Amino acid sequence: MAMTITEKIIAVHAEKERVQPGDLVEVKVDLALANDITAPLSIREMQKHGIEQVADPQKVVLVADHNTPAKDIASAQNVKLMREFAEKFGIPHFFEGGRVGIEHVLLPELGLVIPGDLVVGADSHTCTYGALGAFSTGMGSTDIAAAWITGTTWLKVPPSMKFVYRGERKPFVTGKDLILFTIGKIGVDGARYCAMEFCGPVISELSMDERFTMANMAIEAGAKNGIMEADQKTLEYVAQTGTKRKPRIYSSDPDAEWKEVLEIEVSSIEPQVALPHLPENARSVYSLPRIEIHQAVIGSCTNGRIEDLRMAASVLKGKKVHPRVRALIFPGSPKVLLQAEKEGLLEIFLEAGAVIAPPSCGPCLGGHLGVLAEGERCISTTNRNFVGRMGHVKSEVYLANPYVVASSAIAGYITAPDKI
Amino acid sequence: MAMTITEKIIAVHAEKERVQPGDLVEVKVDLALANDITAPLSIREMQKHGIEQVADPQKVVLVADHNTPAKDIASAQNVKLMREFAEKFGIPHFFEGGRVGIEHVLLPELGLVIPGDLVVGADSHTCTYGALGAFSTGMGSTDIAAAWITGTTWLKVPPSMKFVYRGERKPFVTGKDLILFTIGKIGVDGARYCAMEFCGPVISELSMDERFTMANMAIEAGAKNGIMEADQKTLEYVAQTGTKRKPRIYSSDPDAEWKEVLEIEVSSIEPQVALPHLPENARSVYSLPRIEIHQAVIGSCTNGRIEDLRMAASVLKGKKVHPRVRALIFPGSPKVLLQAEKEGLLEIFLEAGAVIAPPSCGPCLGGHLGVLAEGERCISTTNRNFVGRMGHVKSEVYLANPYVVASSAIAGYITAPDKI
Repeated sequence: MAMTITEKIIAVHAEKERVQPGDLVEVKVDLALANDITAPLSIREMQKHGIEQVADPQKVVLVADHNTPAKDIASAQNVKLMREFAEKFGIPHFFEGGRVGIEHVLLPELGLVIPGDLVVGADSHTCTYGALGAFSTGMGSTDIAAAWITGTTWLKVPPSMKFVYRGERKPFVTGKDLILFTIGKIGVDGARYCAMEFCGPVISELSMDERFTMANMAIEAGAKNGIMEADQKTLEYVAQTGTKRKPRIYSSDPDAEWKEVLEIEVSSIEPQVALPHLPENARSVYSLPRIEIHQAVIGSCTNGRIEDLRMAASVLKGKKVHPRVRALIFPGSPKVLLQAEKEGLLEIFLEAGAVIAPPSCGPCLGGHLGVLAEGERCISTTNRNFVGRMGHVKSEVYLANPYVVASSAIAGYITAPDKI
Repeated sequence: MAMTITEKIIAVHAEKERVQPGDLVEVKVDLALANDITAPLSIREMQKHGIEQVADPQKVVLVADHNTPAKDIASAQNVKLMREFAEKFGIPHFFEGGRVGIEHVLLPELGLVIPGDLVVGADSHTCTYGALGAFSTGMGSTDIAAAWITGTTWLKVPPSMKFVYRGERKPFVTGKDLILFTIGKIGVDGARYCAMEFCGPVISELSMDERFTMANMAIEAGAKNGIMEADQKTLEYVAQTGTKRKPRIYSSDPDAEWKEVLEIEVSSIEPQVALPHLPENARSVYSLPRIEIHQAVIGSCTNGRIEDLRMAASVLKGKKVHPRVRALIFPGSPKVLLQAEKEGLLEIFLEAGAVIAPPSCGPCLGGHLGVLAEGERCISTTNRNFVGRMGHVKSEVYLANPYVVASSAIAGYITAPDKI
């Protein structure tokens, strides 16, 4: 029977010949992830029920990336709880201090997720790993606790939607612009509980870093997961992580059933900016009036990889950040940060007057390290611009790619590199 | 009439021939400083009384260094209030975003304080500038508001105590160890409301960075101020800031009156560690049992200068931070950070697994970026180890120099570089 990539991965993990949209299945989980906001809820749920069991400590991942280095006593207590839990159950993949990267940057980099995996995480952007040809999705903390205990979870098989990207990209149009444009087209509920499969020649051309950015934002269209077929680039990426596990590569069958197929011609797409307060408010940066900003954020699980920093550095090199603007750089992991250092990017950022923060989710969700005051406007490479997302309910967040955020940081208002 | 340096500076600013300890005098202020914790109190005090006047905007300094990049909405609102105040009164020395350094590192570096100045600040470690041969002291936020409005403040002239350091220093004994040893000797109230004048051949040998460290901690012995006579090193330091103001150099008269003179023979002093919960609990690092740590902090207004980072890097080079330990580096200013980058220190820190934070007071006062959980132990180059200073009331802080903190970060317990 014909299936999509998503259906094939779920079927294998459910130990079934086939599954179809709407099926409720129990699946084995290759990895179950939580962070310092969500893991404490999972752990306390286990403690409340006196459960002293973890199915496989190797399949548990704990990343203290949200409010760290600890922003307050409660955050410090949360990390401590994770540390003690990791020690008790012999969980090797616990990350704090200098080992912390933003979870969705860190896990692929370390080879903890590979093509064909089924991964669940107590974080909505767990869908990022779809860029590797893995099925991955966000869940609640109690679901993650159950996955830790049993090694399994249950799912309703999502219908698949196919997004085919063709044409030649204009300058400064990145994976971020493709996904913002797509969300702009279908809306924030346009793929509700669906698998978004991204394909076509443009996806093949994208680097892995840009693919991660696209899969990362599938949730912003309401999707259960985003996914891309693993190709040679994927395999090279996985090989250099040094993992010994073997990738399992799936393709959607030619006669697979699609809820919808969207053909997207990219050649007319310009760099996108999603206006407050929804990611679907995407439009061309060139169409905007003069919007003055107070903060510019480059980083996050969406755009915190080395190529993102290279994009930003290419714009900031030899320039100065506008005096009104706080330009905050959040490298996604220690590896990204060290690589940026070796390539001279940190020097470019510092010479420009930017702030380099430790790998952390930082202000993306209003956590710390750049929370907005009343009336402040921020342009950001992050993934959400809901009311109050980054601080005060009367602050505003604009979403864009690293080129646009960097050039806006210099200009003091939202603009593109070719306009400064 | 014979006077000490402190008395001479106060006399000049009071426009008097002479002053003596106990005199109440009104003095002109060369600079009045506040940060994002204290400035909002000063500003609101002015607003409350409807005061629309600043004597000289050039003499007001506002540094948003404590809870920035903003750790929460309240912190962001505080910085916004400072920004609006700076704009309203045309205050040029307002520092936020990429211009932020830790106030007491930043001001000397920018040439905003020079020898002979009288500086007040709404921060207890304002005494740092004594290293330049300036009189500087901490005050409350309302006092600072009054200084902004009138350009003056009042003082009771402190009696002076003379600390003479002689002998040859052992390896890894720095200015930090001299001041910890001194506080250990006289106690945290040993210089209450006195001027501590540091002198002798050892002080002449110290670099400016080490002198700042010593003057910075005068307040930890209860002093009104710490001070050192400006010498050739001081003048070279001031010259390279590019300031056009002329230093005024004062010496204590040979027959000046001292409340007390302490001769300190340094040759038997070993690297010091101040145990919880007072800076006076200083003893030799070699005398300690095995004390395991969870966090190691290098930075702050006490030890966040380039030489401090060099000390730490000399120990961390080619080594790895212990897996239990979060090693957090807080460069004191953008200039220090950029210099560290150019010298390859950042690469050493990152290769070792340390975290590099933006210039900020960070966890020193339990603010953010490394707050401690219950039962956690931290060794730190900062200045205070009071109960709950860095987080939970059941956490512990040990004070030491950057060599000792770096070697402890590697070992996982408190130790010195020659023991790892």
